[in-house]
Amino acid sequence: MRDVAIIGVGHTRFGRASKTSLELFAEATLRAVDDAGVSLKDIEALFQGAALTGFEEGQVMSAAFSAAELNLGPIPATRYEGACASASVAIRDAAQWVASGEFELVLAGGVEKALLMGTPLATRTFAMACHAPTEGPAGLTFPGVFAMAARRYAQTYGLPLETLREQMAHVSIKNHRHGALNPLAQFYKKMADLKVEDVINSRMVADPLTLLDCCPFSDGAAALVLCSAELARAYTDEPIYVLGTGQASGTALARMGDLTKPLSRITSARMAFKRARLTPGDIDMVEVHDCFSIAELIALESMGFFAWGEAAEATAAGETEIDGKLPVNMSGGLIGKGHPIGATGASQVYWVVKQMRGDSPKGNQIDPVPEYGMTDTLGGDFGTLCHLILGRAKRSS
Amino acid sequence: MRDVAIIGVGHTRFGRASKTSLELFAEATLRAVDDAGVSLKDIEALFQGAALTGFEEGQVMSAAFSAAELNLGPIPATRYEGACASASVAIRDAAQWVASGEFELVLAGGVEKALLMGTPLATRTFAMACHAPTEGPAGLTFPGVFAMAARRYAQTYGLPLETLREQMAHVSIKNHRHGALNPLAQFYKKMADLKVEDVINSRMVADPLTLLDCCPFSDGAAALVLCSAELARAYTDEPIYVLGTGQASGTALARMGDLTKPLSRITSARMAFKRARLTPGDIDMVEVHDCFSIAELIALESMGFFAWGEAAEATAAGETEIDGKLPVNMSGGLIGKGHPIGATGASQVYWVVKQMRGDSPKGNQIDPVPEYGMTDTLGGDFGTLCHLILGRAKRSS
Repeated sequence: MRDVAIIGVGHTRFGRASKTSLELFAEATLRAVDDAGVSLKDIEALFQGAALTGFEEGQVMSAAFSAAELNLGPIPATRYEGACASASVAIRDAAQWVASGEFELVLAGGVEKALLMGTPLATRTFAMACHAPTEGPAGLTFPGVFAMAARRYAQTYGLPLETLREQMAHVSIKNHRHGALNPLAQFYKKMADLKVEDVINSRMVADPLTLLDCCPFSDGAAALVLCSAELARAYTDEPIYVLGTGQASGTALARMGDLTKPLSRITSARMAFKRARLTPGDIDMVEVHDCFSIAELIALESMGFFAWGEAAEATAAGETEIDGKLPVNMSGGLIGKGHPIGATGASQVYWVVKQMRGDSPKGNQIDPVPEYGMTDTLGGDFGTLCHLILGRAKRSS
Repeated sequence: MRDVAIIGVGHTRFGRASKTSLELFAEATLRAVDDAGVSLKDIEALFQGAALTGFEEGQVMSAAFSAAELNLGPIPATRYEGACASASVAIRDAAQWVASGEFELVLAGGVEKALLMGTPLATRTFAMACHAPTEGPAGLTFPGVFAMAARRYAQTYGLPLETLREQMAHVSIKNHRHGALNPLAQFYKKMADLKVEDVINSRMVADPLTLLDCCPFSDGAAALVLCSAELARAYTDEPIYVLGTGQASGTALARMGDLTKPLSRITSARMAFKRARLTPGDIDMVEVHDCFSIAELIALESMGFFAWGEAAEATAAGETEIDGKLPVNMSGGLIGKGHPIGATGASQVYWVVKQMRGDSPKGNQIDPVPEYGMTDTLGGDFGTLCHLILGRAKRSS
């Protein structure tokens, strides 16, 4: 299998968009193509994550029409749906097709227009990524799932719920602060200086999660140009390599056991580390799926960056800040940057690539420039997990 | 790249099902696993086509929950959506992952529960696979698209519409006859002896297409076990090899030009022939996407089996019958067997494999047993096309 590189990245402003999803995806893609310096006619295939475009705009089969929107000709264009992990699954697949030698140069990314529906309908629609036979009739939605996870976390580690509320607030404060510095973030220049009390006292959504513990609904798109490592050098002096990928699946919550130790996330992360021949200690930065503040803590522990039960206190102590042990969600994450679900995995990769190029928004750039970065994307209630590990140097063979 | 083989196939009865889509997919999968003689614990990944399960049952991310339903553990499970071509795209991807050496043994297939919605709502819901920005506001649905294609066909070749009605009726008569012999078909033991007048005089749907020119809505699932060619011999003496695959994308109809010569179908078929190092003359049988009778004629010409404008007369003359130049849709096709959209591509492969094993339903088995077979699957109004070429012997290297 060949090494695969990312040579171009593109990203729309996250937030409310007037464009259709086909137009949003085209905007991100054209930015990625410009960034790579490639020609649209060199694109051999398109891999798109999109979760709910049928419900949002009455458009399914959006990958094919995205290829048409970009006038790419009759190339293969495939849509992947793994709820919020859709784009990461698409990128993983794109990397595999390039690695196997079938394609030289491809586009991968994702798109979503989640704000069209409004929060109540969007919440119910997103909940279709729960296990319909058992969780649908129970009326479960994602804030409820993660509120249960937070309570389980507090119970397991003997934390008073008030203590956990404060620790979770530090996730929200950090990610909102990073988002406030990110010009493409939904909350750019907003909520830069939240206090613990602001988070704890914001509107209750699903106790103990308040509004500021939750990511927003968002419109947006992000896209990447991937190619073989050999070809990459013809276009750029700073290709970012895909060193390893992982993907795994979960079960209905009723059969899952401990919500704070999801087997799907553990399995997927380990697969990515194994493929990359790296360990958590090698990683310099991560973008993790903080759909809710508690989700960031679960992610960091499941991926092996912190021991079980230690991420909450470590976060409150600043270990996931820019100058901490492991900078987490320097882009703002889903909480500060926004969460256009089908696009989120591609957005995470975009911001890891930016870090590795030393090209992050002012105030958010890690110094020294990271050598290894990782993304973590979660679909549904741990149903689909996907991890991607990126590096500035090729994997040692 | 390694050779890839199909060593097990499974198929539910098409028609109205009381099971959920997760249960239907599990039924097909367990049949495929039994047929292959493999153990569920040997399955390394799952590739699933499903087009509209969100609308049908409020279940998205169905691939992950299908893996859970089968108790496969946290393996990667990916859902593909390319409208009616969803399963074929999933199978193509599965073959690529096995060919590249990443997996040894995987499951691929598709599922749909289309009958839940009823015809009027299903027709409108399926129409979301049209180009939403331009075709949605026009109120276009698929019967309308293919009625236009039929009229264009008649006009291009100077056929009186009454002549084309009769020629199209022969597609319907043949496929209903094959379906009547197929115990898993929706119209098993029904409509075995239609006459041209029966088709022409059945209820008008979109002139010139009558009810019997149209495939039905269906529930159903089909699944395959794929593995490396090396591994296949450990399980079976009659592996069927995946010799070549193709996939291509279309555009909005307004930009498409001639509806009867879809570039996406031509491109995808040629890609599959090139990969398989075969030509149309090598193929002994095909399962094509006869969502409407006219669609079978367009498919056969676009794939290169008949010259432009000659498939209609050839069909009426019996050239696509069991003893003709090229047996087409011996399973009954979508018209006679049913069309659970996300499952259809996997069902087509199932019936090609059955032919190549000499194990087709009585009366439908081609003699001698075909050496090379092909599937053609169409998503939307030519938005996603996918072709798979199968053979009883490995591709000569």
